Amino acid sequence: MSPRGRVHLLPAPPPFIRTTREDELMFETDRPANRDCLISLPPDLFAMLEELGSSTGEPVAGIVEQALRSYLRNGSKPDNSVYLSAPVNAMMKGFYRQNTAIRDLHRHGDFGLGTFNDLDGEMVMLDGRVYQLRADGKADEVDGAVRTPFACVTFFSADTVEEIEGDFDTAGFNTLLHRMIPSENMLYAVRIDGLFRHVNVWSVTRQENYRPVDETGENFPSFVYENIEGTMAGFYTPKFIKSLNLAGFHLHFMTADRRRGGHVHECRLERIRIALQHVPRLTLNLPMTLDYLTALLPR
Amino acid sequence: MSPRGRVHLLPAPPPFIRTTREDELMFETDRPANRDCLISLPPDLFAMLEELGSSTGEPVAGIVEQALRSYLRNGSKPDNSVYLSAPVNAMMKGFYRQNTAIRDLHRHGDFGLGTFNDLDGEMVMLDGRVYQLRADGKADEVDGAVRTPFACVTFFSADTVEEIEGDFDTAGFNTLLHRMIPSENMLYAVRIDGLFRHVNVWSVTRQENYRPVDETGENFPSFVYENIEGTMAGFYTPKFIKSLNLAGFHLHFMTADRRRGGHVHECRLERIRIALQHVPRLTLNLPMTLDYLTALLPR
Repeated sequence: MSPRGRVHLLPAPPPFIRTTREDELMFETDRPANRDCLISLPPDLFAMLEELGSSTGEPVAGIVEQALRSYLRNGSKPDNSVYLSAPVNAMMKGFYRQNTAIRDLHRHGDFGLGTFNDLDGEMVMLDGRVYQLRADGKADEVDGAVRTPFACVTFFSADTVEEIEGDFDTAGFNTLLHRMIPSENMLYAVRIDGLFRHVNVWSVTRQENYRPVDETGENFPSFVYENIEGTMAGFYTPKFIKSLNLAGFHLHFMTADRRRGGHVHECRLERIRIALQHVPRLTLNLPMTLDYLTALLPR
Repeated sequence: MSPRGRVHLLPAPPPFIRTTREDELMFETDRPANRDCLISLPPDLFAMLEELGSSTGEPVAGIVEQALRSYLRNGSKPDNSVYLSAPVNAMMKGFYRQNTAIRDLHRHGDFGLGTFNDLDGEMVMLDGRVYQLRADGKADEVDGAVRTPFACVTFFSADTVEEIEGDFDTAGFNTLLHRMIPSENMLYAVRIDGLFRHVNVWSVTRQENYRPVDETGENFPSFVYENIEGTMAGFYTPKFIKSLNLAGFHLHFMTADRRRGGHVHECRLERIRIALQHVPRLTLNLPMTLDYLTALLPR
């Protein structure tokens, strides 16, 4: 939010108002029931309001009122929803190019994972920043114009946080995660920060379009990190939604310095903090590309 | 929208502004980049804004700016999304009671179909009104407190409209519908109004909770209408989403007088108008009932 917005709420609406403060304001009104506010808006927002007003023929006053009502009705918090930019089955069938730009994802979350067009690396979104974890294991922040065939994001807000200390291997870690979720029929976002004895990750390599994942016959490059601080970001998805999102727990890892990472394959914990968000809603976007619309998808 | 809202957009932001119009306004600003508007708001909206500001500690200016940005970004139209109150597989497994009230559906659509708790009849939502089509074939409008274990709704707005005249049977009708959809991987809402030579509908009868649909062993009562005017409301859902919504075309029928109807089983057309809405998004709500959370659902 811009700190520039300024609102002067005028508590009493008599026919004339004169303030003696920095801003002096005087006007008459024939609607004593209404109350007035003077809002200072950034120019881009101002221009958008005027444009919408002139394109729809709707009075700007009405647009502002409707916007405020809509916002107050739906709550000021973002919707607690897991957003999928596309059903995962299209990507699994080899549709590696969609027209979803990273900047479109920011409207739906500040946390998540996915991949990039042409399967060019694993994606992690943490605290609103999007990283590309390339096949060489290195990570870079990407800009908003980069595109993704599949991403899964949410606005992260933990419902429960657990501090875990001890030598858990991959199986123990999975048991731990499964114990933390009260129902297998709900969606969860999971963020894990801490110290790992061992993390084995892999990253996809750029692929030819239309070549399904299970036909690439490729061993994706993998990397092992020992005694490393980092963050895992991901989701739990119920099995009956598996055509839309990878089922079970799906986690991507990034080192604490945000320089390296990949898809979590194995790990051994030392001291971590598991933050879990229960998400009672899924929003699925269907891409409008010709590739997607004409795909023969598994049923 | 209230006609009371009034906005004065001040096109140029010099340090001092004086208009000679009905409303006179004068102020200074130290942020020449911003532009100001004077908004006249109904008192309830004004009070809600102040309340949110004081409860969150957020400056009201920020709230207003965020509301306007959110509104302009998402468009002034309601989101073009098919909303599911629950995944249909829970209902098919015999979970006939959820805590979704009809009034909750109005936030997500004005058009759709579904059923009622305890499988007590078929639901049709048309033009924002919700009807219960009971096992005796009769229909009543229901109030907002009634609950549903499954409903599928959207804000209806046709993208294409076709006028069809001729003697099409059920198979011909299905072919017609399938020809109208450009992709089997997209969601569509379908509204059909017109004259039917023949419509055969059935309606579910109240069921014991926890008794899966395929184990009821029941023949649901069916009704035949001849030469009748009416409306069909429903959706097309891609097959890979079948765990969440019934796949293919799913239509409910109501007579033009809104007194009778049911789930469409067979029909024969005479003269109809098919309105089709392409829906590129699905929103799935997951119920928070103990029944849902502990259900063993098909995978």
